[in-house]
Order: sequence, then structure tokens, then C-alpha cells
Amino acid sequence: MKPKLEDVAKLANVSKTTVSRVLNNRGYLSQKTIDKVNEAMEILNYQPNSAARQLFQQKTEIIGLLFPTVANPFFGELIQDLERKLYKEGYKVIIGNSMNDSEKEEYYLNQLLSNQVDGLIVGTHNRGIQQYQKDNLPIVAIDRFMNTDIPIIESNNYYGGQIATERLIEKGAKKIVHTTGPSELETPTHRRMQAYTDTMKKNNLDPLIYHLDFNISYEEKNDIFYRIFNENPDLDGIFASNDIDAIMLMQIAVSLNKRIPEDIKVVGYDGTELIRYLYPNLTTVVQPVKKIADKALSVLIQRLKEEKTEQEYILDVYLWEGTSS
Amino acid sequence: MKPKLEDVAKLANVSKTTVSRVLNNRGYLSQKTIDKVNEAMEILNYQPNSAARQLFQQKTEIIGLLFPTVANPFFGELIQDLERKLYKEGYKVIIGNSMNDSEKEEYYLNQLLSNQVDGLIVGTHNRGIQQYQKDNLPIVAIDRFMNTDIPIIESNNYYGGQIATERLIEKGAKKIVHTTGPSELETPTHRRMQAYTDTMKKNNLDPLIYHLDFNISYEEKNDIFYRIFNENPDLDGIFASNDIDAIMLMQIAVSLNKRIPEDIKVVGYDGTELIRYLYPNLTTVVQPVKKIADKALSVLIQRLKEEKTEQEYILDVYLWEGTSS
Repeated sequence: MKPKLEDVAKLANVSKTTVSRVLNNRGYLSQKTIDKVNEAMEILNYQPNSAARQLFQQKTEIIGLLFPTVANPFFGELIQDLERKLYKEGYKVIIGNSMNDSEKEEYYLNQLLSNQVDGLIVGTHNRGIQQYQKDNLPIVAIDRFMNTDIPIIESNNYYGGQIATERLIEKGAKKIVHTTGPSELETPTHRRMQAYTDTMKKNNLDPLIYHLDFNISYEEKNDIFYRIFNENPDLDGIFASNDIDAIMLMQIAVSLNKRIPEDIKVVGYDGTELIRYLYPNLTTVVQPVKKIADKALSVLIQRLKEEKTEQEYILDVYLWEGTSS
Repeated sequence: MKPKLEDVAKLANVSKTTVSRVLNNRGYLSQKTIDKVNEAMEILNYQPNSAARQLFQQKTEIIGLLFPTVANPFFGELIQDLERKLYKEGYKVIIGNSMNDSEKEEYYLNQLLSNQVDGLIVGTHNRGIQQYQKDNLPIVAIDRFMNTDIPIIESNNYYGGQIATERLIEKGAKKIVHTTGPSELETPTHRRMQAYTDTMKKNNLDPLIYHLDFNISYEEKNDIFYRIFNENPDLDGIFASNDIDAIMLMQIAVSLNKRIPEDIKVVGYDGTELIRYLYPNLTTVVQPVKKIADKALSVLIQRLKEEKTEQEYILDVYLWEGTSS
């Protein structure tokens, strides 16, 4: 006879509710309890089927969003769009803000899980967090490599880095600096950096990369950007890994009496609606924020229905041709 | 003899936990249960003291933030700063995004409450929501009038509207348009509008106000802004109720071959760090984001300790003198 949930509960010496919580990964449970229940399931060869899981699964209709920041317009617009779309589908959203800090990310992840979300959309920079591995909640990652069970939605970062660098070279820039995030964190910006490096080398130009820490103040950032100009008096091109940095660098260039694009050509990255309305002159690689949100939503819904999904979804980027390069 | 919590539970025919949840306003409870417990407390003249409440109060160390949007840099920076400061104090944060929609606000409020937050910081536009009234959770409002029990942190909106308008008049503008939010929602921007109107009249100038809905797309906003220029060919001054709108209006002016500040003088509002680095030329009224976050935090902590707080805290604003006016 097939073992039942009651049998698992009895053997593990816990309540049926506890077994169901382990199955559905809900609420705070000690590792000891989780191990005990898993061990009992193994001994009895208990196979929870999807219907049984659904039965015990208390739907909260809440989706957790975990992102590194809300202060960058790219994440601001993405979160806003996800919220709007999820709400239309009957889901409410709670947002955690990890500030690119792995300790915080883990805190917020546990918090979102203990708040019994039905699913998660994560776009945080940190990886390798154990929690993600043992988790069987529906999760979709945006632009972040997690583990092989979690589908990733990303825009084509390598191609983005390539068209940005090619544009600068076509326009005649030779001494081109690339600003990006910290080297120790593996993020999608690494692929942009790789494309920059490859494209520079292919054109017999020397790559020159400045790594900036996350979570530094605008003031500190400004100081580093001034340093870039001081250290490279012959600088004539900039590929910044986001539009905020690109515009800050342009402001500094102007304050140093450099003309854009005559003296210095600039390409940014992200191309949010906000920046395209505020700074239409900035040439930038546009990430398709709305398409990313749409895809994340549809894949999450597939996961919620326990349907099979692809491992990776890559969306196109394109160049917004301003006058800055 | 003084009645005890047990006596209330017995009379109301509920568990002690339920009484404690009513006292501490935690978790989902039906109105019927709440009424039954309140009635029992009244009959017995039960007086929960602070210590008793603390005893039953399960600390979650989570603070809920409820704001209209994360996509505007003002709220982006405010949320980021609150998160950082609360985290240092040992609190984690979950964020609800009401999108200026009172139905959503109510959903998110209930959700944050049922997630058992220790306190709330709210900066949403909608008011009069019943939930706030019966709630005895520590709440601090930023820039939003709630009810008399909830302390408000705000910057001096009237003064901000006054110095913005005075600046434009001093610089020679006569036909000055003010753009603001919808007229039916009572928000702090109303005081800026009132100050604009008063200052215009004092200078024998006619106020001219355009109300924009929240949650319209950038495209729709752009269309309305073009209309402002079409309808007012002699326009020579703009006081926008936020910096995003100010910069969008400047971009349109430039595309219409108007010079700034020679033909059209512009003053914005908010003066976030982001905008001051991206658009240092914009003259704008600076709201002290960091001071607002500091004050909200210290008042919330006072409320968590059940200490007495003021009803209202008004913080100074100042003019960032760019070249746009």
C-alpha cells in the first residue's frame, strides 16, 4: 500500500501540518525537523504528488520580489512593471531590497519565504546562497544565474556590450574606458565587460576597465569618475555599465571643458524610459524592461502551475542612437 | 480584583492568543471576533498595560514600508535610506507599492499587517482608509496626513512652493505654469500649489495650474506637456511639482527651440541626489531626504517604545540654485 502523509507524520513524530510545511517549504522550520521529515519520507518511500501538494498548499497570492536596489531607475521600472502585471493576475507583491549584500539577501529571502509567498522573482547580485538550492518554491531569476532548477530571464548582455563598444570605435574613439561593478561578483555585467574586452582587442585597442563597488555614495562615485579623467588625459570614449554612471561622467566631462561627442564619446546601458525622456541625447543600450517583466511573469505562472519551463530566456537589446556617441 | 487576560478570553469565548492578537492588532481576525473581545474587555473593564502588551507581543523585527511608487527617485532614495537605517537598528524591511491606488493601498496595508510587522512607515497618497483608524500599531506617516494619532514627518511644502514661485518671478517670468497631481487627492503638493497661487496673486500674476493624473505613462505625460506649450505660446516660467516633470518640460522646450533660462525659466521640486548629479543645472527645491528618513526612524522607535511623540515634525527645504532659473 502506498504510504500516506499521516504515516510520514507518525514516523517523524511531528504533526501532519509540519510534514505539509516541509513539503511546501513554508514557515520557519528547524533544520532538525526538516531532516527528520525528509528521512521519514525516504524510509517510507513517500512520493508526494502534485495534487497532494496543492491540497496542502495554502495559497497566499503573494509574490516576493528580491532586488538589489530600488534607487536605480532600471530596477525601479522593472519592479513597478512587475507589480502592475502581477496585480492584474491577482497577485500582490512584497519587495525586499538586498542592497547587494549577501547577508541581507539571505535575511530577506528567509523573510519572504516565512511570509509564505507563492513564488519569488529575484534579481539580486549574490549567488551561491544555500537557501536557493533546497528551496522548491517557484522561483524565476532575472539576469542572475542561480542553480540549474531556476529559469533565468536575461537580456543579451554580451551583444549589448559588443554594440556599445563597436559604436564608440565606429565614431572614432580609441582610448575607451569601461566602468563596471566589482570584479569579485559574477553578474551579467561581466558579459558586457567580456564583450567590451573582446571587441577592443579585435580592433587592436587596449581595454581599460574601472571597477566600482556597489553601495558607494554618489559623492564617492563622483570622485572616482574625476580620477578616471585625471589618470587618462587622452580619454576619448566611455562605455558605462549603466546610464546613471554615463550621465555623471558626461557632466564631469562638461565641467572639464570637454565637448560631447567631439572630444569624448559616451555610451550608457539600460535605456529606461525615465532616462530616455530625461536625457534623450544619451546613446545607450536599451534593455527591454517591459518584455523582461512579461517573460518573468509568464514563466513564474508556468512554474506555479508546475509546468515545464526552459532553463534560459534571452531577450534582445538594441542601441538607442543619441548624440553622445 | 483586577481582571486578567484569561477572564477576557473566557467571557469572549476565545483563546488567550486571540485576545492578545486583538490587543496587539496582529494577524487576520474577523470583525465579529474583534467586537466580541472588545466587548468583553469593556464589560470587565480590562486595562491592558504596556508591559502586558509587550509580553504578548511577538516581535518580528520587521518594519513595513508603504509608498506610492518606487519609480520616482524621491521615493527610491527615501526607501533606500530608510532600509539602510532600519537595518542598522536591527530591523528588516518589506515594501508595499500602492501605485496611488486606494484599493491597492488597503490590500497592501492588510498584507503588511498580517505579515505581523512591528511598525509601519507610510508615505501613500490616499487617506481616510478605515484600517488606519482602528489600528494600534506604531505608524509614522511621511508627508501624508492620516489621523490625529499618527505622527507626520513632512518638509515645509508651503515654503517650498513659495520660494520656487518667488525665484521665477524674481528672474522675470510672468506667465508661469504650475504642474501638479490630481486635484481630488489631498496630498502635500496641495500646499505647494496653494503657495504658488498665493505668491502669484500677491504679485498680480494669474495662476495657471495643470493637474496630471498619477500612473500615466511617460508618453501620455509627454503629450500633456506638449499641450501646455501649445496652449500657452507666451509661457515664460514653469514650476513643476517634481524634478522628473521639470526636466521633461525642459527637454520639450529645447525641442521647440526655446532657450533655458532666456526664454523659459524652470524650477523643479525634490532635489534628490540622483537628479542633482544628473542635472546639476536644474534649479529645484530640495527636500531633505536623509533628514526625513532620520526623523521617521527616531519617531518610529519612540512609538515602538510607546513613548510620547509630537503630532507633526516639519523639516526645512532650500533652493538648489542651478541655471534653469
